[in-house]
Amino acid sequence: MSAQEITVPAPADFHVHLRQGKMSELVTPHVAEGGVSLAYVMPNLVPPITSTQQATEYLESLRALAPKTKFVGTLYLSPALTPAEIAKAAKNGVRGVKSYPRGVTTNSDSGIEDYETYYPIFEEMQKQDMILNLHGEVPSNADAGICVLNAEEKFLTHLFKIHRQFPKLKIVLEHATTRKAVEAVKQCGDTVGCTITPHHLELIVDDWAGKPLNFCKPVAKYPDDRQALRDVVREGHPRFFLGSDSAPHPLANKYPSAVTHGAPGTKASASGSDDLEPTGVVSCGCAAGVYTSSILVPLCATLLEGFGALDKLSNYVSINGRKFYGYDDEEEVSQGSIKLRRVDNGSSSSSTSAATVPAVYVHPEFREVPDSDGSKVQVVPFWAGKRLGWEIVRS
Amino acid sequence: MSAQEITVPAPADFHVHLRQGKMSELVTPHVAEGGVSLAYVMPNLVPPITSTQQATEYLESLRALAPKTKFVGTLYLSPALTPAEIAKAAKNGVRGVKSYPRGVTTNSDSGIEDYETYYPIFEEMQKQDMILNLHGEVPSNADAGICVLNAEEKFLTHLFKIHRQFPKLKIVLEHATTRKAVEAVKQCGDTVGCTITPHHLELIVDDWAGKPLNFCKPVAKYPDDRQALRDVVREGHPRFFLGSDSAPHPLANKYPSAVTHGAPGTKASASGSDDLEPTGVVSCGCAAGVYTSSILVPLCATLLEGFGALDKLSNYVSINGRKFYGYDDEEEVSQGSIKLRRVDNGSSSSSTSAATVPAVYVHPEFREVPDSDGSKVQVVPFWAGKRLGWEIVRS
Repeated sequence: MSAQEITVPAPADFHVHLRQGKMSELVTPHVAEGGVSLAYVMPNLVPPITSTQQATEYLESLRALAPKTKFVGTLYLSPALTPAEIAKAAKNGVRGVKSYPRGVTTNSDSGIEDYETYYPIFEEMQKQDMILNLHGEVPSNADAGICVLNAEEKFLTHLFKIHRQFPKLKIVLEHATTRKAVEAVKQCGDTVGCTITPHHLELIVDDWAGKPLNFCKPVAKYPDDRQALRDVVREGHPRFFLGSDSAPHPLANKYPSAVTHGAPGTKASASGSDDLEPTGVVSCGCAAGVYTSSILVPLCATLLEGFGALDKLSNYVSINGRKFYGYDDEEEVSQGSIKLRRVDNGSSSSSTSAATVPAVYVHPEFREVPDSDGSKVQVVPFWAGKRLGWEIVRS
Repeated sequence: MSAQEITVPAPADFHVHLRQGKMSELVTPHVAEGGVSLAYVMPNLVPPITSTQQATEYLESLRALAPKTKFVGTLYLSPALTPAEIAKAAKNGVRGVKSYPRGVTTNSDSGIEDYETYYPIFEEMQKQDMILNLHGEVPSNADAGICVLNAEEKFLTHLFKIHRQFPKLKIVLEHATTRKAVEAVKQCGDTVGCTITPHHLELIVDDWAGKPLNFCKPVAKYPDDRQALRDVVREGHPRFFLGSDSAPHPLANKYPSAVTHGAPGTKASASGSDDLEPTGVVSCGCAAGVYTSSILVPLCATLLEGFGALDKLSNYVSINGRKFYGYDDEEEVSQGSIKLRRVDNGSSSSSTSAATVPAVYVHPEFREVPDSDGSKVQVVPFWAGKRLGWEIVRS
């Protein structure tokens, strides 16, 4: 495909983390910068968003930071949630409820029992046409042969069971990373959708092995799994769509160092075994998450063109997700449409600078703070320093 | 097993990296500190050791640093090597030749052709009773479905083919990490052995995901793979033995940070795409390698006891490897024998301090150098800050 310009109907990101405080101030405006006009915001804050009131207040804070972006809220699935709260949330525009692995398996190896305790919630969600967003992984359990590589596959039985029990409940399997997950969603009915992140369309396990910038959960898997994700996007399957799972982490957490964390053992030897994990490994891990909000639509265009799916860009970043969620109002979609221009990656320095992913984003208040200060609010984006094949035409 | 003391016949480490320069000064004496009296030293220096003369000079430099340790040398398999040089090396006590993936597959997807070009070398090695040490991984190749998770399995056909071609050539499959590799070695004849590292007896993929301290090549795999390694050690199979693959890296390379590396993207944006890898990922990776030399035998005892194989400790760390390599001279073995004492991991601070793995080892000349200086020669060991269950009784 050799088009020089593409018009994309109002892109929507159906899975994004916008944080709180200074980090939220830095990244929330990036949603629009990345070409997205509708952001479906995850509730895993501290504390998590478990009530309509919290959700309403949080969305207000986001709108104050980016008035032109449409923010849609979610609740964190927890025992505190009640059918009455679900009904209230629905009336107040909260669109979905997110289930995290932790919630799946409290006091349980399989998690099934725990999902059953949530059936009254799902019943009310189905009635209110709310979306159930599933982080589709079971917790690792070496004794049971479960690790980060098969945690998603092991979860799929839960997806099938909930779907059978609530065939009219709209469910989204979030950030699928495996062929088995893609096949499972395809097998389900029209009420089951699936988000695919751009970074999982690009990475395999080799790309995050020893490379914190690309480390995220679920982890990128085998080449064949990546192929399955690319194929279903190229196929334009209507129930697979963009959810970036863009997750900003301060650079100091992404690249822990002797300076910001102390040599791993130093902590341990200083405070005894408290710093030791069950396996006995010293805690000095890199935060899991890839940040793509600020470059999202140009990145998606570049990646899809790379595997011959540029003609499905609008389906992936806008049409499929909006239709599944019911945000396909014609006027809204046309108002948010954007135009992309192919970047001349020859030596034209102007277009180069425009399409080169920034090395790092720093909150204005922290510009003068040295990098060695772990509290510095700065985020390194995915593909930092690399050139994108497409850029947004700003009017 | 509730023994309070164990005597272990002269432990031998049949796969260790002792580096050069200041790093070698720091780690070479650690071999004896870890309880090991014979160190089979890898040749991947800069430049690699490809001649008898280089090997001889290198071993001399190591003996100067640790006169009581027996160092055995190897050559790096490369096109420069000749049958004549093999004969010369054998006469001068060089015991083996190490093949690295790079050497396996130059200008080749499968590597088979390249091994055949080395058949004259293998022929002479067989005649000289030299050992062929194989790093058993083929290079990752996403298009062919090969990644770090199946690179070892894909290599096994090469092991079988070389063994068929040279049934009398002693071959060691190094640092096995998978059940398939263990089964492959078992299927081979008595001339094929296999080293297993202590860290692969402990780690699975979850333990290095986002944790640079535990990241090494080959990467730790699934729980079932770890089980296979533990089982073959517990079985006391005579052709499986200790090769630590202890590989020291400066902390700054193990935990890259904004300070020592600059924000990843900064490098890229400063120097264009030179810092970008084929996948487009910014180069800011963590060095692959786990450092265990300084705590080796106590670590092995602690781990083996953890999975019920303490009674096979001598087979794993001494008897099996020495017999396979022919270093089982009774006098040498008895002279190097050591005694281990169980550590009271109650509150006895004395034994605690003795058995707590140091947070970091720093070369004396760098004690005053700040951690933020990337050139600082300091190494964080495996299990830093954690307590070992056994300690060496020093006489």
